[in-house]
Amino acid sequence: MYDSLNAFCTHSAARLQGAPGGQLAGLTFAAKDLFDIAGHVTGAGNPDWLALHAPASRTAPVVQRLVDGGANMIGKTHTDELSRGILGENAHYGTPINPKAPGRVPGGSSSGSAAVVAGGLVDFALGTDTGGSVRIPASFCGIFGIRPTHGRLPLEGVVGQAPSYDTVGWFARDANLLARIGEILFGLDLRQAQRPRHAIVATDAFAIAEPATAAALASVVERITTAVGSSEHRPVSATVPLADWFSHQRAIQGREAWDTFGEWIDRHNPRFGFDIADNFVRGRETPNAVLAAAREFRAARRAELMAMLDQETIFLLPTAPFPAPLRGQPRSTMWGQRTAISTLTTISGTLGAPQLSMPLALVDGLPVGLSILARPGGDDMLLAFARSLAAG
Amino acid sequence: MYDSLNAFCTHSAARLQGAPGGQLAGLTFAAKDLFDIAGHVTGAGNPDWLALHAPASRTAPVVQRLVDGGANMIGKTHTDELSRGILGENAHYGTPINPKAPGRVPGGSSSGSAAVVAGGLVDFALGTDTGGSVRIPASFCGIFGIRPTHGRLPLEGVVGQAPSYDTVGWFARDANLLARIGEILFGLDLRQAQRPRHAIVATDAFAIAEPATAAALASVVERITTAVGSSEHRPVSATVPLADWFSHQRAIQGREAWDTFGEWIDRHNPRFGFDIADNFVRGRETPNAVLAAAREFRAARRAELMAMLDQETIFLLPTAPFPAPLRGQPRSTMWGQRTAISTLTTISGTLGAPQLSMPLALVDGLPVGLSILARPGGDDMLLAFARSLAAG
Repeated sequence: MYDSLNAFCTHSAARLQGAPGGQLAGLTFAAKDLFDIAGHVTGAGNPDWLALHAPASRTAPVVQRLVDGGANMIGKTHTDELSRGILGENAHYGTPINPKAPGRVPGGSSSGSAAVVAGGLVDFALGTDTGGSVRIPASFCGIFGIRPTHGRLPLEGVVGQAPSYDTVGWFARDANLLARIGEILFGLDLRQAQRPRHAIVATDAFAIAEPATAAALASVVERITTAVGSSEHRPVSATVPLADWFSHQRAIQGREAWDTFGEWIDRHNPRFGFDIADNFVRGRETPNAVLAAAREFRAARRAELMAMLDQETIFLLPTAPFPAPLRGQPRSTMWGQRTAISTLTTISGTLGAPQLSMPLALVDGLPVGLSILARPGGDDMLLAFARSLAAG
Repeated sequence: MYDSLNAFCTHSAARLQGAPGGQLAGLTFAAKDLFDIAGHVTGAGNPDWLALHAPASRTAPVVQRLVDGGANMIGKTHTDELSRGILGENAHYGTPINPKAPGRVPGGSSSGSAAVVAGGLVDFALGTDTGGSVRIPASFCGIFGIRPTHGRLPLEGVVGQAPSYDTVGWFARDANLLARIGEILFGLDLRQAQRPRHAIVATDAFAIAEPATAAALASVVERITTAVGSSEHRPVSATVPLADWFSHQRAIQGREAWDTFGEWIDRHNPRFGFDIADNFVRGRETPNAVLAAAREFRAARRAELMAMLDQETIFLLPTAPFPAPLRGQPRSTMWGQRTAISTLTTISGTLGAPQLSMPLALVDGLPVGLSILARPGGDDMLLAFARSLAAG
């Protein structure tokens, strides 16, 4: 469909042949250039990171599981620098084309992985999601994407950013394949999965979406609540606005990112797009007291959720507040957009909960995703339920 | 002497033929890549600035004066990004070699101009000095350099940074040529210049220098005070430590730099070395109240100086607190070095006063400069006096 989406890394022709006879035999996939592939340098979206690192000595376990499962890895894909970004614009390598929304950003940081799936260049792709980096490109590019429960998949051999939020996620064009990948990565059979029996339509999350996006998702919500059987409309957070959730996540994530990369940055003074450097400076300047308060806040939200959300309940929420924004806007415009986006993605980030985005609506012809979110550990339920919706 | 010092810009082969028969006929010079040359893009040390700007429509007046005076311009030289930096390390284009101190930085931001003069590739070179960008590379590269009185030479056609500090300066290997350039640029005959009759050895400035540097400069100070005739040892600032002077300059300069470049940065999200972006963020975050207090502080220091320094008096001070530091150090190390350096250069910056650095001493074989500083307008006295010292 598309010969090139400016989505594959040109510095690494990393390919891995799938094991013969595996369940994923015949399928192709790509991995965000944060995943180590033995013998190749992991570039992480930054030319100085690429230049200053040696080839990986082994392949990341999650990649290996897919190859062992029979899938052929055919390339590495572009990412926002060091996975820091939500729009998919990389000051060094450019912006992958969004095949479903030309002239608009693909979303990030797993920009290339979403683009190659949406454009049909591979069957599925691996990304990472710290603050929305799988969910947002899935929504913007009109494909399925999942951020699993925090801590469920190994991050070994993956360039991490903020350990208390980092996850490995993946994209596919259909819910069935998304689920099959989950079966391989989690090592289970989704036919055993719990089915949701109650749906909470997250009113505070829908209030953040632009009216056209909320309206486009309304009929999908209707269909899903009917399928679940029981539902109610209620805020995720009765006590504090989601904007506060995000300001606390920004503090923790920014500071953890500085703790991850600060020494390397200090040592090498790498080149960054201004906005990436700006984020790092904000992280570095986060005081310990602010960090401690943010962690306390996060623990309180988690306790509230565990009381509210049992193993058979899901939240429904818009993945993003609007379709993919235009490419090349001023950073001040994008800053506002990023804040709005992250005010939605912070829900699962704060809770450590799995979230799956489904490309079930359009706004003026542009994709918008509807998300289902479960209690931590509910990945299986989400994957199986998304598959059943598609089948039914 | 040196074929290449990685000091000339490769993107622009800008050359201008000197007017026949001028006073500078037969001399060659280079200009920092902040000076417009008609038909060439001014790159300003940043590849995105270079890519996003059109060729200059006319040549900067200061360059034109030199060409009209007979000198041949043979190239543009590297600079720290957007003139922000004091060490001469550019994350995009590398670090010009310091011919007098191999393995060490040349100093910046007029890094390339200092290197090509020190290495004998040209007879003289133009730079700019906002926070020390001529004086420091002059000291580190063992050549003469002058920062003139603020506002004395036109900044038209020069990429400015912080208007209340920006100046055009120049380098030469000998005081005689340094003075001849001044005669052309100022349009005067230095034989008419005032001679200093009193020298103040700036005790607070010498206290900032490392002991080995202060010791190396001691005999030079002795020789100069003898030449002047009358002298005393006294601090530049009896009321406030020079560290405070610099913290106020940092606030004003940082904020002015953001006001100069912020809109362009916001629009284009350019790539910067991390330290440059860090400086811009600090400038952007400077509150108005801090800016106002800093400007009040500066006005108070200027009033004190005008009361202390008459037209026949000069300050003697170390140009830099130490010889050129090693290349490629961590940014945290360099941050401390930059602060120490700027605590000396802030004196003339704060006062708007001319300062001339002379390469009159060595520390372990590495050049260190001694500076003479006069009341604003005293450029002529400094140039003529430096020439007389060399002759005598």
